[in-house]
Amino acid sequence: MLLEALYHVPRDKWAYAYDPRTIHLRVRTKKNDVDTVVAMTGDKYDWDSTYFEITMEKAASDEMFDFWEASVLPKYKRLTYAFRVTAGTESIYMLDSGIYHDCPAPTGGYYEFPYIHEIDVFKVPNWAKDAVFYQILPERFANGDAENDPEGTQPWGGQPKTDNFFGGDLKGVLDHLDDLVDLGINAIYFTPLFTSPSNHKYDIVDYKQVDPHFGDNALLKEVVEACHEKGIRVMLDAVFNHCSELFPPFQDVLKNGEKSKYADWFHINQFPARVENGIATYDTFGFFGNMPKFNTANSEVKQYLLDVAEYWIKEIKLDGWRLDVANEVDHHFWRDFRKVVKNANPEAYIVGEVWSDSLSWLVGDQFDSVMNYPFADKVLEFFNGGMDGATFSNRMSSLLMRYPQQTNEVVFNMLCSHDTPRLLTRVGGDKRKLKLSVVFLFTYMGTPCIFYGDEVGITGGGDPDCRKCMIWDPKKQDRELYDFYKMLINLRKTHKALREGRFRFLKADLGNPCIIYERADDSIHFTIWMNNTDQKQTLSHPMVTTDWRDALTNEKVMPVNGTMNVTLDPFGYRILFRNISK
Amino acid sequence: MLLEALYHVPRDKWAYAYDPRTIHLRVRTKKNDVDTVVAMTGDKYDWDSTYFEITMEKAASDEMFDFWEASVLPKYKRLTYAFRVTAGTESIYMLDSGIYHDCPAPTGGYYEFPYIHEIDVFKVPNWAKDAVFYQILPERFANGDAENDPEGTQPWGGQPKTDNFFGGDLKGVLDHLDDLVDLGINAIYFTPLFTSPSNHKYDIVDYKQVDPHFGDNALLKEVVEACHEKGIRVMLDAVFNHCSELFPPFQDVLKNGEKSKYADWFHINQFPARVENGIATYDTFGFFGNMPKFNTANSEVKQYLLDVAEYWIKEIKLDGWRLDVANEVDHHFWRDFRKVVKNANPEAYIVGEVWSDSLSWLVGDQFDSVMNYPFADKVLEFFNGGMDGATFSNRMSSLLMRYPQQTNEVVFNMLCSHDTPRLLTRVGGDKRKLKLSVVFLFTYMGTPCIFYGDEVGITGGGDPDCRKCMIWDPKKQDRELYDFYKMLINLRKTHKALREGRFRFLKADLGNPCIIYERADDSIHFTIWMNNTDQKQTLSHPMVTTDWRDALTNEKVMPVNGTMNVTLDPFGYRILFRNISK
Repeated sequence: MLLEALYHVPRDKWAYAYDPRTIHLRVRTKKNDVDTVVAMTGDKYDWDSTYFEITMEKAASDEMFDFWEASVLPKYKRLTYAFRVTAGTESIYMLDSGIYHDCPAPTGGYYEFPYIHEIDVFKVPNWAKDAVFYQILPERFANGDAENDPEGTQPWGGQPKTDNFFGGDLKGVLDHLDDLVDLGINAIYFTPLFTSPSNHKYDIVDYKQVDPHFGDNALLKEVVEACHEKGIRVMLDAVFNHCSELFPPFQDVLKNGEKSKYADWFHINQFPARVENGIATYDTFGFFGNMPKFNTANSEVKQYLLDVAEYWIKEIKLDGWRLDVANEVDHHFWRDFRKVVKNANPEAYIVGEVWSDSLSWLVGDQFDSVMNYPFADKVLEFFNGGMDGATFSNRMSSLLMRYPQQTNEVVFNMLCSHDTPRLLTRVGGDKRKLKLSVVFLFTYMGTPCIFYGDEVGITGGGDPDCRKCMIWDPKKQDRELYDFYKMLINLRKTHKALREGRFRFLKADLGNPCIIYERADDSIHFTIWMNNTDQKQTLSHPMVTTDWRDALTNEKVMPVNGTMNVTLDPFGYRILFRNISK
Repeated sequence: MLLEALYHVPRDKWAYAYDPRTIHLRVRTKKNDVDTVVAMTGDKYDWDSTYFEITMEKAASDEMFDFWEASVLPKYKRLTYAFRVTAGTESIYMLDSGIYHDCPAPTGGYYEFPYIHEIDVFKVPNWAKDAVFYQILPERFANGDAENDPEGTQPWGGQPKTDNFFGGDLKGVLDHLDDLVDLGINAIYFTPLFTSPSNHKYDIVDYKQVDPHFGDNALLKEVVEACHEKGIRVMLDAVFNHCSELFPPFQDVLKNGEKSKYADWFHINQFPARVENGIATYDTFGFFGNMPKFNTANSEVKQYLLDVAEYWIKEIKLDGWRLDVANEVDHHFWRDFRKVVKNANPEAYIVGEVWSDSLSWLVGDQFDSVMNYPFADKVLEFFNGGMDGATFSNRMSSLLMRYPQQTNEVVFNMLCSHDTPRLLTRVGGDKRKLKLSVVFLFTYMGTPCIFYGDEVGITGGGDPDCRKCMIWDPKKQDRELYDFYKMLINLRKTHKALREGRFRFLKADLGNPCIIYERADDSIHFTIWMNNTDQKQTLSHPMVTTDWRDALTNEKVMPVNGTMNVTLDPFGYRILFRNISK
C-alpha cells in the first residue's frame, strides 16, 4: 500500500455537511492500490454505543488516485471518525494524528466533524439543478430599438472590434424571448447591462442605471417580468472588482487627490492617481488604467456595492448574480455579499468567475458555483482528439473531486463564453465534434450554459471575434444545428436522470477515444455512446435487459446474447434509455 | 520521483499571505526523494516582464514527507505560479491543472493567489509571541476571602472531587500577584469566573456577573488593573457552546416549552425539554443534560454572546478570550466573534479549545491560536521514552506544517491543563523528565503556558484529581523546581531568539532519544542539548566557533578540534549560547 498517496483532511471537500443530517467523507488512495476503505465512526462522548462502520464506495478515479466516498448520518450531529484501509491482508488506520498499523483507542487523535450546524451547511438553489442557461451579450444579441443606438453604430453583422458598436439592446431581447422559449432554455445570463462607455460594459459608470444604449430600468424590469412569465430565470453580471475610470467617485479622486472623500475607495499607491509609462499609480483590473480596482475593504465601498446587489434583486426580482473577476475581490466582501443576496432572495444563484481551483469560495459561505472553464478545456481537448477515453474519464473525475457535491450539482458548465473562442471554432469548424461536445454538456452533471448563437452556427476566434452579432436571418442560421440543440435541451429538461442521476463511465479505455457512459435514477436509465474517431465504429457493452430504445427516435435497440452493439458513424453518438420498473 | 506524494493547493496553509506584501508557499514531496523545488512566479497579466524563479527551502520533514517553503513578494499583489520539482536529471512541473513533464505555457492552468487583500491577511497579536501564560483555576488557586466561601467549603489542600469546593477566589489571586511576578509569567489564563453552580464554572448561569464565591465585578476589574500594572495580560474563558440548565432563558424553556420566547435559543429536538433515560430531548455538551447547547445561529443568542464578549473587553480591558469547546460552535458565529472582539481590542488574543486538526479555524477569519494538546502528547511521549529523536523531530515538524506561520508563532503550547493529568504525573513523577519537557516548552516556538502549581510540584491524575489546591506553604513547595521554572521563564523573556528565532534540530537520530537543537536570530545563537536516557551520555556536534557559554552558569564551553562534546547526566540538559557579532 502506498502510504504517501493516502489523503484526507477533516474539512472542505473531504469532510462536509451535505444537508443538516448528512456528512460526506472522501478519502484518496493510490489508483488500484487498495481493496476497501471503511469509515469507523461514532460520537466521541459515547463511542461504544454509537460506533458504526461504513464501507466507502470508490466514487471516482483519476490518473494517479482512487477517491472513496461515504455518507454518514450521526445520531447526535457529532462525528468522530477514522479510516481502515485494506489491501490484501494488510490493513492500516488513518487518523488525524497519523497512520497506524494497529488501531489506536478512540481516546484522541481521531478525525472530527465536531457538530453539524445548519447555518454552516452549504446550500445551493434547487432550481439551478434544472436550469439550462443562455448567455447573452446584449450589444450583440438583437437591435430592437434603433432610437437608442450609440453614435457610429455599425450595420448588424459586421466584424466585431474591441470598440465598435452594433446597437443590440434590451428591446431586442424582449422581441426575441419567444425564440428562446422555442429553443427551450429556462435561464438567461446577461453580461453587464449598466451604464458604461464600452461595448462589453465591464467598466461601469453607474451601477444603478441600465445603459441608455440598452434601454432603461423600466425596460429591464419589463424584460425580467416577461422572462419570469415564460419560466425563464435571469442572472446579471456583478462587476465589483473594478469600475470605469469615469465612475464619479474615481473622477473625484482624479480631481481632488488625497483630499477626495473617495480617496480610500480605491487602492491608490501614490497620489496623484495617474498612469505613467503604462503603469497606473493605483491598482487596476489587469494593467488597464481605465478600470480602477475597488477597495472592497472600505466600508462605504462595501455598502455601496452590497446595496447595488440587493437593489437589483428587489427591483427586478433577479434570480442570480455572476461575479466578474471574483477571485480578485476579498473574501470578507463575498461572505457579506452572500448574506445580503440570500437574505433578499434565498433562491438566488451565485456564480463566480474563477478559472482555476475555486474551492476557497465553495465551502458554503461565498459562492454556489463557478464558471467551469477547466470543464470546457478538457471536454474540447477530448473531442479534438487530444486524449483517449481513460484520460478523459480521469480528467472529469479529477474535476468532480475538486468540489463538494453541492457545487458539482450546479457548477456552471459551458463550452465557450465571451472570453474564449466560439465553440464551433474551438472544434476546428467540425460540427460532428461540436455535437459530441454538446451532447456531453447536456447529459453531464452541472448547470449547462449556451453562448448565444452557438446554436445557429456562429464562429469566431478569441475576444473580440467571438462577440459577433447574433444571426437572425433563418436562411443564414444553421437550422439543423438549432434543432439539435433544441432536441437536447428538451431531453435534459424532460428527464431528471440527466440532471441529477448517477453518472458513470461504462467504457473509457486506454488508447481508445470512444466512450460509453450512463446516467440513471430510480425511474430511467440512459446510456450514451460516442464514437470520437473519424472511422465508423461499433461499440459493445454487456447489457442484460432487452428494453432499450433510442432516446431520439424511440426505436427499439436490442442486445445480442447479452451484448449491446452500437454502430456509429465517424464522430457519431447515440443515446439509449430504458424505463426502470419499480 | 514519487508523484503521488506531491501536494499543494492554492489556499489555507499551503498558500497564504503572511503580511500585506508577502505570500508563503509550501510544497510537499516524498521524504528524501527530490533535490530542488523551484517556485515559478509571475503576474498573469504581464507574465514575461514579471517572471521570477524562487528556489524553495526544505523547511521541515516528517516520517513520510519533506516540506518546502518560499516567501514571495509579488509586485502588483497578484501571484500566478507553478513549481518545478527536480530529482537528479528528472524535472516535473506541478500546476493547478496537473503534473507535466514539459512545462506548459502560462496561459492557464497555473496556480493562483489572485490578489493579496489586507483585510484577508491573518493577523495575530504581537504580544502573544512574548507571552508566558499561567493557567489559573480560581476555585483552587488561593482563598483570599473566607467570607465568600461556598457552603460546605472543605479545608484547603483536600482531595478534589467533581463537586467539592475549597474556597479559592479572586482576592486570593490578587494577594498572590507578586508571587506570579516573582515567577516571571506575564499573562494569566483564568478558567471561567462567572456565576455557575459548579466548582469549574463551565456551566454558566450569568455571563455578566463574577461568581459571588469568587468576588464581584469590581474585584475582577481590580485584579485585571493590578495585573496590567504589573505587566501581566489577562485572558478569560468564553463558554459559548453551552450554558447551565439554570441559565434563566433555559429555565424559561423548561417552564413554557414551545411558547417560551427562548425556545429557539437552544436545539430542542422535542418538547418538553427534559432528560429521558440519560438522553436529553435537547442538544447538550456531551451527554450532560445540565449543560444545554446554545443555538448560536439564533440572532438573539448570537447578539447576547457577542455582547458578553465585548462587554468584558471594554469593562475590564481584557486581553484575550479562550474559547471552550470551540469546535462545536458554528463558523458564522466565530467569524462575527472575531470582528466584535478585534474591533473592541485589536490586540486581543483568541485561543480556541480544539484538540484535533484546527486549520478550519486558523485561516485568519476566526481564531489566532488553539490549545496545542497534540504538542503536549508528543512531547511527553518523547520524554517518557516512547520514541527516538528522529521520530520526535518528525512529529514536531508535522505539527508545524499543520498551520500557517502566524499561528505557529502564537500557538498555545502547554504540557497539561485542567482537562489532563498533571505534568509531573504524566512523566511518572520523574522530575528529570519533567524538566526536559519544560526546557523544550520554553525554548520552542509558540506561546507557552504553565498550569498553576506545576512549578511547585503538584501531582494529580485526570479530572478531578489534577485540579488540586495550590500549595502555598513554602515548606511543602518544591522550591528547587520553582527556581528552575523561574530561571527558564526569565531566559525566554530575555532572549527574543528563544521566542521568535529560527528553530532547527541539529541531532535527531533514528534509534537514539538524545537530541540537540538550535534557536537563533541575528544577535544570539542557542544550542540545547538533551540526554533523554537514563544513562550518562556525551553528545557531540561539529562547532566551529569557540565562544560558547552555558546559558545558566555563564561558564565557557569549548569545542575540541571543531567538535563540541557535552556530557550530560541521565535525563540531563544543557543550554549553550554565543553572541553573534554583526
